[in-house]
Amino acid sequence: MSNVKMIFAAAERLAPVVRRTPLLSSPFLDEIAERRVFVKAECLQHTGSFKFRGGWSALSGMAEEKRNKGVIAYSSGNHAQGVAYAAAKFGVPAVILMPEDAPSQKIENTRALGAEVVLYDRLTGIREEIGAKIARDRGLTLVKPYDEPLVIAGQGTVGLEIAEQAKEENITDAQVLVPCGGGGLTSGVSMALAEVAPSFTVRPCEPEGFDDTARSLASGGRETNNTMGGSICDAIVTPSPGEITFPIMQKLCGSGLVVTDDEALRAMSLAFQRLKIVLEPGGAVALAAALFHANEIVGDAVIAIASGGNVDAATFMTALKA
Amino acid sequence: MSNVKMIFAAAERLAPVVRRTPLLSSPFLDEIAERRVFVKAECLQHTGSFKFRGGWSALSGMAEEKRNKGVIAYSSGNHAQGVAYAAAKFGVPAVILMPEDAPSQKIENTRALGAEVVLYDRLTGIREEIGAKIARDRGLTLVKPYDEPLVIAGQGTVGLEIAEQAKEENITDAQVLVPCGGGGLTSGVSMALAEVAPSFTVRPCEPEGFDDTARSLASGGRETNNTMGGSICDAIVTPSPGEITFPIMQKLCGSGLVVTDDEALRAMSLAFQRLKIVLEPGGAVALAAALFHANEIVGDAVIAIASGGNVDAATFMTALKA
Repeated sequence: MSNVKMIFAAAERLAPVVRRTPLLSSPFLDEIAERRVFVKAECLQHTGSFKFRGGWSALSGMAEEKRNKGVIAYSSGNHAQGVAYAAAKFGVPAVILMPEDAPSQKIENTRALGAEVVLYDRLTGIREEIGAKIARDRGLTLVKPYDEPLVIAGQGTVGLEIAEQAKEENITDAQVLVPCGGGGLTSGVSMALAEVAPSFTVRPCEPEGFDDTARSLASGGRETNNTMGGSICDAIVTPSPGEITFPIMQKLCGSGLVVTDDEALRAMSLAFQRLKIVLEPGGAVALAAALFHANEIVGDAVIAIASGGNVDAATFMTALKA
Repeated sequence: MSNVKMIFAAAERLAPVVRRTPLLSSPFLDEIAERRVFVKAECLQHTGSFKFRGGWSALSGMAEEKRNKGVIAYSSGNHAQGVAYAAAKFGVPAVILMPEDAPSQKIENTRALGAEVVLYDRLTGIREEIGAKIARDRGLTLVKPYDEPLVIAGQGTVGLEIAEQAKEENITDAQVLVPCGGGGLTSGVSMALAEVAPSFTVRPCEPEGFDDTARSLASGGRETNNTMGGSICDAIVTPSPGEITFPIMQKLCGSGLVVTDDEALRAMSLAFQRLKIVLEPGGAVALAAALFHANEIVGDAVIAIASGGNVDAATFMTALKA
């Protein structure tokens, strides 16, 4: 069962290690969006994405004897790095199951953080099944990327920080735009804000063609994507919203926003130019929605979570030329 | 007269508007430097560099009737943007004198921030003379880029934050590497740390061929650069250390560190990859020294100030390919 008390507890466990990432802004972005735009720069978190929060929350929240046997995670990369780094800091083994076509930097980083990487083909293999088998065979605890209450609680701490920082900026009412894959970050932030800043509305953001959450929120049931490959927003492509995360999003979120790959690339370029931060395409979809879908958003202020920055130089250069 | 009390006073005036920029790190950078490396990310400051601090300090520290008549500044760009943004926030006029060959983004940004931009040729014109004349003719107050106690005090607030953040990271002793042009940031940070973290040593960092401060510290007198053009580190190229800043640096700083353009570009690339921040070449010289001149540095930890991120996409792409 996922609840807001778990988020407060996760915040306490994270306090000694997490980075309180800044809430950035630029008058140039405000002008494009025609309202105040704030960017929660989770790309500056340890391992380059918010996923460290969930990883640390899961490892610090499990029994010590369980943790000491080691953990396993499957991930397109950011969750992998978050779990690997958390495991390394605890000094316990980590096995990471990654798709063969994940960006090379993500694979290398995960290895360099001390984890054992096992690759699979994401078009033919079902990572949930492969992961469960390795976990069973080796006695490892599986840390799921989003359908896991401790992980959701860790991601939810982003929402607690947003509420505090919004207060410092005198933001009393805002829509909070969240890049959404399986919904761990979106559901966690929604629960946190429902408690500490109930006037805020969370809007999940996805890339065109992989808008399973937006469609699910519209239809009322968990919809799936037609394909799992071919998006530049690899970090937030999942088959469908999670079993645990979807009911939370359904209860607490506003409708989804959908951006094109080109809009995500242009948001990366503007984040480079105006905020001096590095975003990956999946991490830029909320900022893209804030800037280029302004007429689908209401209110004087919008807060976009920039969820990750683990991008290859080649993709980043494509964005700078966009 | 410049002193540490002015830095504490500037910190109070800056508190409502300044961004407390994060102190970032990555195990991958620690490995290269063979010690703990921390990066004070002032590229995330308003206007993309620490210069906003000095600009705000100067405007908020001058008499109201003087400020209302307007200000003038000369700058290769970052000081210009800092002063222009501070003036815009106060709602007073700003004239900015910039070299014709300044990066186009810096010129455009300064204009977009509401300032009137006057261009000059930096190979033939002496900006100090041109600036003084316009100030006289129009009744504006000149805000010098570094030889001005209020500006030095504003930049010194970076040192106060470093001391606080170092404490949070359990750093008790460190060399603090500072990108150095005229010495406003270096002298301000030196004064602040001498007061609040006296075990820290400040080391000015400069690009090869423009190492006037390193040579001045070695010789004991204010040395000049042979030329003012041709460096990719445009933000920190000045004719010589300042009249006010040099005696402070002479009293408080360790010897200077000098890096090549190629090292600055590689530091930009690593900051992109490992910290997810955007640095301009001049803003990356301290990180370059931390990473590639490790044997000229002592201690378990080094803190590099990343002073600015106002870089054209073309230059940034050059760094990513380096």
